[in-house]
Amino acid sequence: PVHVKDFSDSDVALSPRTNNGYLSNEEDEGEMMSGGKAIYMVSDGTGWTAEHAVSAALGQFDYCLVDRGCSVNTHLFSGIDDVERLVEVVKQAAKEGAILVYTLADPAMAESAKQACNLWGVTSTDILGPITEAVANHLGVSPSGLPRWAPGRTNSLSEDYFRRIEAMEFTIKQDDGALPGNLHKADIILAGVSRTGKTPLSIYLSQKGYKVANVPIVMNVKLPEALFEVDPQRVFALTINPVILQTIRRARAKSLGFNDELKNNYSEMDYVKQELEFAGKIFAQNPVWPVIEVTGKAIEETAAIVLRLYHDRKNKCSMPRISKRY
Amino acid sequence: PVHVKDFSDSDVALSPRTNNGYLSNEEDEGEMMSGGKAIYMVSDGTGWTAEHAVSAALGQFDYCLVDRGCSVNTHLFSGIDDVERLVEVVKQAAKEGAILVYTLADPAMAESAKQACNLWGVTSTDILGPITEAVANHLGVSPSGLPRWAPGRTNSLSEDYFRRIEAMEFTIKQDDGALPGNLHKADIILAGVSRTGKTPLSIYLSQKGYKVANVPIVMNVKLPEALFEVDPQRVFALTINPVILQTIRRARAKSLGFNDELKNNYSEMDYVKQELEFAGKIFAQNPVWPVIEVTGKAIEETAAIVLRLYHDRKNKCSMPRISKRY
Ligand SMILES: Nc1ncnc2c1ncn2[C@@H]1O[C@H](COP(=O)(O)O)[C@@H](O)[C@H]1O
Ligand SMILES: Nc1ncnc2c1ncn2[C@@H]1O[C@H](COP(=O)(O)O)[C@@H](O)[C@H]1O
Ligand SMILES: [Mg+2]
Ligand SMILES: [Mg+2]
Repeated sequence: PVHVKDFSDSDVALSPRTNNGYLSNEEDEGEMMSGGKAIYMVSDGTGWTAEHAVSAALGQFDYCLVDRGCSVNTHLFSGIDDVERLVEVVKQAAKEGAILVYTLADPAMAESAKQACNLWGVTSTDILGPITEAVANHLGVSPSGLPRWAPGRTNSLSEDYFRRIEAMEFTIKQDDGALPGNLHKADIILAGVSRTGKTPLSIYLSQKGYKVANVPIVMNVKLPEALFEVDPQRVFALTINPVILQTIRRARAKSLGFNDELKNNYSEMDYVKQELEFAGKIFAQNPVWPVIEVTGKAIEETAAIVLRLYHDRKNKCSMPRISKRY
Repeated sequence: PVHVKDFSDSDVALSPRTNNGYLSNEEDEGEMMSGGKAIYMVSDGTGWTAEHAVSAALGQFDYCLVDRGCSVNTHLFSGIDDVERLVEVVKQAAKEGAILVYTLADPAMAESAKQACNLWGVTSTDILGPITEAVANHLGVSPSGLPRWAPGRTNSLSEDYFRRIEAMEFTIKQDDGALPGNLHKADIILAGVSRTGKTPLSIYLSQKGYKVANVPIVMNVKLPEALFEVDPQRVFALTINPVILQTIRRARAKSLGFNDELKNNYSEMDYVKQELEFAGKIFAQNPVWPVIEVTGKAIEETAAIVLRLYHDRKNKCSMPRISKRY
């Protein structure tokens, strides 16, 4: 078998495909290039930081991305930790008329990126450098200059690391109302009707280290007693616009291939509205639960709201914030 | 019930606590402040972009963070979309001697942040501005200046969005060898002994839109036939150093409160080694499966390696990359 010990061991070539926005091999490279402007992202690590920052920036161009007025292809080059490959990527960026965004921990590599980009006429933006510099001045210590996969670096198996994994494992076991006996162990409990995004929201929060349980609300079905026995401060109710919910449910019923007999009213407007009313009554009877409107919100947006309220409720201080120690 | 329609609706106060690195209310604010240098993160959106970038930068100070030589407290202020609250946060940053990192889509807000920081003597770093500007020049269009939660912005329920949710739901149903009949539907299949991180890795990948199944390898237990019937290019084998694995298993056995009779050899070195050998033989019989060494790697690091290989294997092109269309 091919042993992949670390990133640089692998030097196989790969190319674009579709999978969630990923480009498919049906679209050939020529077509791809002509289809939009390219953004290169280069990291000596995973590249996720650059990807996250670029994707936030692209949010500013939603208005022309949606109607394909402008179209963008991003290309992520991760594990770039030697100058040779770096220069190769820069040259390719020049060829494709791309701009380049980079996170390179080694200052010499960052400098090389800048110079190579200047040389080849590629616009470049350093994402890591400015923050690292600000933090270094603030702390009064020098950055290590070591990338993620540097040989000297040890990734300590921290308590935090294990707590997160435990949170994820807890959360997936609690999905969809499973094991109500464990509800009291959850940090956060989400309640809402089908297709309010409880599952993806639970997963998102669990990755941040919170143990999450979600409890589905189904018309005329009694909720588990345990839900009313836990600290109500930990319960978050989700609600959604009925028209949007119907659209989502229809799409789901179709993708699951529901037969008409099985769940024939699942996406009927009358039923959708009645089920939301049924949920609303339960929420009204539990006034401590905040009711969060999820319509039109991305998962990470709802997550931000839940966590803000969660930290809010845990303690009080002068200004709303989520604090973390490193 | 408290209806939380959007972020600005909530103006309750909250404060630090512990939960994964989050600060606890046992540590009072004074102690907290004296315990380390503060970094403020301010966003008109969720704040996750700033958090991600700051956390990458802090990786450069691991060497002094671990032994508490330098200690850092980050404070995330999300949904800051008016100048009044922005100025309040800046003043508080000045009081606490913090530096401030911001992502503010509205150029007027970004400018206010900069000026207020100058005025109050707070070092500030703009994370969003420089990339947005580079992208704007590249595309030849202006950024909208609209933050995530701007009234005008519609978060279209894109195909991509549904595909991701479907991937997450698929993935949690397939955890720990469940439903082997669905293995052929998975984009990625992870195989490895207990505690190689299959579950958190599956979750991480599913959030990026990949349908993942994981199959546990247990000493002398036959693997599901389906694993050998799927495209072997989709299977990724995980391996780990036996000493580290033993440590992890011991911690787990303890946290689960395993009684000695039930799984007494689960974390015994002999058993651990034999089980890894058993797995190694299976991997050797399936030479197409890449064997990925997870020892000392964070989940997102292993994820980067898996995805690079995955895209690698899907097609071939001049340079290894992961491409995506916006
Ligand atoms: N824990 C860490 N230790 C050292 N460097 C890191 C760490 N995390 C991220 N980085 C660096 O931060 C940048 C972004 O990381 P990534 O998101 O993996 O591309 C890269 O230059 C990494 O080398
Ligand atoms: N889809 C989006 N549309 C508009 N702005 C966005 C989008 N996603 C992120 N942003 C902006 O990017 C910055 C970082 O976002 P966040 O990670 O939510 O803090 C903020 O200024 C957001 O307003
Ligand atoms: Mg669900
Ligand atoms: Mg598992």
